[in-house]
Amino acid sequence: MLNSITQENIKVGEIANGLPLTIPVYRLKGSGAGPSVYIQANMHGAEVQGNAVIYQLLELLKHTPLNGDITLVPYANPIGCNQKSGEFTLGRFDPITGTNWNRMYHDHTDLIPEFVEAHQNLDDSALKAAFKSTLLEQTHALLDGDAYRLTTGKRIALNLQALAHQADLVLDLHTGPISAKHLYCPMYARESARYFDIQNVLLIPEGFGGAMDEASFCPWWQLSQTLAQRNREFPIMVEAFTVELGSQEKIDLEEAKQDAKSILNYLNHKKVIDSNEYQPNQMTRYACYLKDYLAYYAPMGGMVEYTAPLGEPISAGTTIAKILRMEQYLSEQPLHEITLPVDAIPILHFASASVNQGTELYKFFTHYFEL
Amino acid sequence: MLNSITQENIKVGEIANGLPLTIPVYRLKGSGAGPSVYIQANMHGAEVQGNAVIYQLLELLKHTPLNGDITLVPYANPIGCNQKSGEFTLGRFDPITGTNWNRMYHDHTDLIPEFVEAHQNLDDSALKAAFKSTLLEQTHALLDGDAYRLTTGKRIALNLQALAHQADLVLDLHTGPISAKHLYCPMYARESARYFDIQNVLLIPEGFGGAMDEASFCPWWQLSQTLAQRNREFPIMVEAFTVELGSQEKIDLEEAKQDAKSILNYLNHKKVIDSNEYQPNQMTRYACYLKDYLAYYAPMGGMVEYTAPLGEPISAGTTIAKILRMEQYLSEQPLHEITLPVDAIPILHFASASVNQGTELYKFFTHYFEL
Amino acid sequence: MLNSITQENIKVGEIANGLPLTIPVYRLKGSGAGPSVYIQANMHGAEVQGNAVIYQLLELLKHTPLNGDITLVPYANPIGCNQKSGEFTLGRFDPITGTNWNRMYHDHTDLIPEFVEAHQNLDDSALKAAFKSTLLEQTHALLDGDAYRLTTGKRIALNLQALAHQADLVLDLHTGPISAKHLYCPMYARESARYFDIQNVLLIPEGFGGAMDEASFCPWWQLSQTLAQRNREFPIMVEAFTVELGSQEKIDLEEAKQDAKSILNYLNHKKVIDSNEYQPNQMTRYACYLKDYLAYYAPMGGMVEYTAPLGEPISAGTTIAKILRMEQYLSEQPLHEITLPVDAIPILHFASASVNQGTELYKFFTHYFEL
Amino acid sequence: MLNSITQENIKVGEIANGLPLTIPVYRLKGSGAGPSVYIQANMHGAEVQGNAVIYQLLELLKHTPLNGDITLVPYANPIGCNQKSGEFTLGRFDPITGTNWNRMYHDHTDLIPEFVEAHQNLDDSALKAAFKSTLLEQTHALLDGDAYRLTTGKRIALNLQALAHQADLVLDLHTGPISAKHLYCPMYARESARYFDIQNVLLIPEGFGGAMDEASFCPWWQLSQTLAQRNREFPIMVEAFTVELGSQEKIDLEEAKQDAKSILNYLNHKKVIDSNEYQPNQMTRYACYLKDYLAYYAPMGGMVEYTAPLGEPISAGTTIAKILRMEQYLSEQPLHEITLPVDAIPILHFASASVNQGTELYKFFTHYFEL
Repeated sequence: MLNSITQENIKVGEIANGLPLTIPVYRLKGSGAGPSVYIQANMHGAEVQGNAVIYQLLELLKHTPLNGDITLVPYANPIGCNQKSGEFTLGRFDPITGTNWNRMYHDHTDLIPEFVEAHQNLDDSALKAAFKSTLLEQTHALLDGDAYRLTTGKRIALNLQALAHQADLVLDLHTGPISAKHLYCPMYARESARYFDIQNVLLIPEGFGGAMDEASFCPWWQLSQTLAQRNREFPIMVEAFTVELGSQEKIDLEEAKQDAKSILNYLNHKKVIDSNEYQPNQMTRYACYLKDYLAYYAPMGGMVEYTAPLGEPISAGTTIAKILRMEQYLSEQPLHEITLPVDAIPILHFASASVNQGTELYKFFTHYFEL
Repeated sequence: MLNSITQENIKVGEIANGLPLTIPVYRLKGSGAGPSVYIQANMHGAEVQGNAVIYQLLELLKHTPLNGDITLVPYANPIGCNQKSGEFTLGRFDPITGTNWNRMYHDHTDLIPEFVEAHQNLDDSALKAAFKSTLLEQTHALLDGDAYRLTTGKRIALNLQALAHQADLVLDLHTGPISAKHLYCPMYARESARYFDIQNVLLIPEGFGGAMDEASFCPWWQLSQTLAQRNREFPIMVEAFTVELGSQEKIDLEEAKQDAKSILNYLNHKKVIDSNEYQPNQMTRYACYLKDYLAYYAPMGGMVEYTAPLGEPISAGTTIAKILRMEQYLSEQPLHEITLPVDAIPILHFASASVNQGTELYKFFTHYFEL
Repeated sequence: MLNSITQENIKVGEIANGLPLTIPVYRLKGSGAGPSVYIQANMHGAEVQGNAVIYQLLELLKHTPLNGDITLVPYANPIGCNQKSGEFTLGRFDPITGTNWNRMYHDHTDLIPEFVEAHQNLDDSALKAAFKSTLLEQTHALLDGDAYRLTTGKRIALNLQALAHQADLVLDLHTGPISAKHLYCPMYARESARYFDIQNVLLIPEGFGGAMDEASFCPWWQLSQTLAQRNREFPIMVEAFTVELGSQEKIDLEEAKQDAKSILNYLNHKKVIDSNEYQPNQMTRYACYLKDYLAYYAPMGGMVEYTAPLGEPISAGTTIAKILRMEQYLSEQPLHEITLPVDAIPILHFASASVNQGTELYKFFTHYFEL
Repeated sequence: MLNSITQENIKVGEIANGLPLTIPVYRLKGSGAGPSVYIQANMHGAEVQGNAVIYQLLELLKHTPLNGDITLVPYANPIGCNQKSGEFTLGRFDPITGTNWNRMYHDHTDLIPEFVEAHQNLDDSALKAAFKSTLLEQTHALLDGDAYRLTTGKRIALNLQALAHQADLVLDLHTGPISAKHLYCPMYARESARYFDIQNVLLIPEGFGGAMDEASFCPWWQLSQTLAQRNREFPIMVEAFTVELGSQEKIDLEEAKQDAKSILNYLNHKKVIDSNEYQPNQMTRYACYLKDYLAYYAPMGGMVEYTAPLGEPISAGTTIAKILRMEQYLSEQPLHEITLPVDAIPILHFASASVNQGTELYKFFTHYFEL
């Protein structure tokens, strides 16, 4: 083993019997010549495949020379991960409040005006270091403040941010329900999307919506914008992505190895590692703006056969689902074919065949284009 | 029976076996001399007491001369109302998505610029009628548009808005978990708060957060604001309140009668009815701004004895909870007394004795004042 | 359309808002020359494919001459069918009590001693008619008795039994979690198992465990046994099976057509229909006694990749799962290969990759043999 | 502090992220002159008050001279204790399977024939010791056998039995939903029921139904019976009770102190302690046989106001509930008064006001008598 790996368990909360909630943190030390990396998985309880990707990353990285430090966090959410309801994992939202676990990260952009005022005379490198320190200090200040001010989810999120803000490159590993692989990529980082072996790329605006990727890059993007208004060109120093690995409730170790390699392509491109071995596959990559990411809700209640191929472009008019309604077999048509209203790439569909009217049936890239 | 009551069942969705979700709508017809009223209950599944209040309102109103039309909707949410998880009703959020059922109403304020442009020459009465029509048309347009664009909750919400936008006075009956009575009152309508027999009043800003009361009054408040910018004084034509009746998971018919009378005090004040019988009780009413409504999260996981008296002012330093942690009886203090950080009125507390670190333990009025 | 189909909606309960719970019942009338049939689906909420099979049966049967009456009931459980928890359907047990919906049928075998005493002089045909009447009368007596004596699930079950006890052949359509097709077959009816296109057959004893198939055949088997003790040979007049169609949460209309044909093979064999078209496929069928149906519980908590091929024999020592445990990547082996302890046919596995220690990982036929 | 208390954390399982599930075990050492005691609490997740009783027992016992060893286990079920669904604790059954956590204990009575054959020549004291050893050995053999044979709940139950079988007196602390205090008492131990400050006593038969109390006393009762058949009088050496402390989801430390004293009355009677301080209150105690413990299911769906006083005798014809059904306010009577069919003592009622038809509304002692 070339690199040593260390483990630390951080406490992120306490459950009702008073026991601590902990998260394992794995660290590999780099030479310092390259950017540092933070990768986490399984913030949503059912989205387990990222843990397998982290396993494969550890297996690959322990033999790879490292320029930058890498921090890896599987099981990022110890509540969601263990919340069963029937056979499935009910880990998308806090079971008490309904709040999506991935919408509770803290937005630090309000720190920027004061920060810029105080530090604008620093050079780029010192400014970067100072801002990183500010983000970390503020994160710890929130964690160390009055305990009664933090919700369960916010405390977990802040603990993860305390790790993520140390890094230059942040990857949050998720999955869809039943889903093709896709990548959430901030618009400024679209060139980087070419290094992942992921065909479909969602280009998101730089605003904050509560997710880890946004919590990581928004302050840096905003800092860059603020300095630009003062006529200083300051690069966006952090890149962050949500990597959607496919379907939830599923572990596939071989596929995880491919996804680990896909991540290493990107890290190689960023000089975290130097290895000719990790090069992206040739493929047609498609991009779609978030505003064109169409949520298609079930137009009626029923039992659904999903027929659209995930990940591949299909034409308007294609049948995407057959909805069976056996309550009115005699009085109405029992089988309804649902067709796509526009040209699109189906990215994911609902995990169950049973839907209410208004359940999210599919999500589609529309107005997509080659990246 | 003086007034005739009519019932209509409106369809607000379909469940997975294809059966319709319906909501019962009761209507009483007034003379037309007074404002019209819309009252709904049980949007959150466990908050059932509002149905009993509607029952008592119907019992009282059928013998009371009416100036305005009154529409009453119990069981406003047929999914939440019937969603059991163990013995309790899991009806606060969509069980599929986690979205709070009371945050899915539609914000119509974006209609206002165009509306004002087109109708500003009308007199107040005609302008009110035109705006009411616009709100209703737009609500129906959304309901009648592409079925695939509406979530389950949005469809329910829009159907309820299609009823509420017909009214001048809107009351949404809720409860807290374990709670004292309190009233959500928009700041412009604070004088009206004196007519309810409710001691504690939360004054909320006029912005939109997704709830029924806001969906009802925001467009009218915004219309008034927009016209003020054009130097026309146009009164806010609609008042809307969320009435918090006490604790969830509980029916108390006698208490419901008192709350029905409290509502009739307000309707009498507004000339919906003319009855000397319905006069508010003398009481000290306290008010608190929403920004001072303190959510107090459990500073540790444990088993909680709640000791603060709900609804009454207490001083900083009062013990509000004892938290028992039996995992470390020997190694740490097993019993923790939690004290209030500021003077406050405890309004509600969590429904269960088991809390994680970060579970919302209490909500307090702080910086409260006499209304 | 050769046969007319009629629909009746039967009321099987009421939900909290007072609305009725109803079940659609479809009936086709036969000439009377053959046995009558009862088929139901979706007693467990997530097991939806049986509804599609009933759809395909209706499509096929409307053009097929019928000797016997056929009653078809999709959506047999209106609560389970619509109980969502997250994306999945939590329909295996009553969400309030935890009781398995398929363990609440009534055992009528206690009627037999008195029945035999009263009717033993009747000939076979009259005895059969009398016993059928007794079963139906007693079912209705329970339904019409004190309302406060029946649980929610028992009331649904009794309503379904009131339909099933009219039939000579009863099929209850279920699915496993992730599963190969298999058939629960009472031991006395093993010859009939050859007519279904189902490779794996579980031979169950004739005792009562609460399920629909048992509720249907146990009284008849027990009647036959009791008469045998009095030296009268009385055939078991009813056959009943639980047909496991594959995996839950999935609709596949083409597969449903194959399963409909498989059922028609059996009905053709039983002379419910006369059609050379419906003949079973040649295949090696395997059988296993219920006592040898091995539930294999997760020997450790972790994230599981399931590797055993479902439905096909495998040898002792085969790897059936890889369990990933990323909490102790450094301190223990993170990846565990789980091997099969005996020769077996894997029939089904858990629906999620996340398991606690002791979660049912697989079920296996062991000591299986060719049927 | 007179007595030293030791703590051990025992591992009873593993969750999906591989972390151990542990239970805290507190032990006090006695002189050996009296019987040993095992007390556990919170096997059902929402039934938390027993933890407070154990807290108060520890506070009282640390200053009390002890004849016998006492083992105290709060938080007996680390899964149930932390399973939230909305605000409430969904801890009555395994959320994956629906199995009641208190029905998974192991029945050891099948060991008895062989045991009696081998050890019947021992004297009473040696026979007791030998049987205790056998129960413990067999419990450990099951725990140490093939890991794949144990469900999650069975493993927890066996770990608790491994503690309970060491004791002569076993108390399992539970609560009802909304409930008066009551005691489950095996018929042979009815005299002991007089020492608890609990007015209502349920006399249960000595058969095994899966609960902790039964798992503890059944083998000893059965051993006594078996020896009686061989004309040897062998006392039932173990007493076990389920103590129902009142309502779930509630911590009341003062009430817990009273219940701790009530338990000490019993332990004093049994010579575990010698203290005149702990004497039962004078009260009329009522008893009811389990067969007469009437479950009263909601005769209709609706919203319920519970009106029966818990714990006190009421007469046939008393109104026990008002059921409001607002769906048919016009077409039927919206408010139904439900009356009690027989003289009874209401012991507990459902925790929520919303009930389906067939939900368990109340449980009543009927045909009760003075103890």
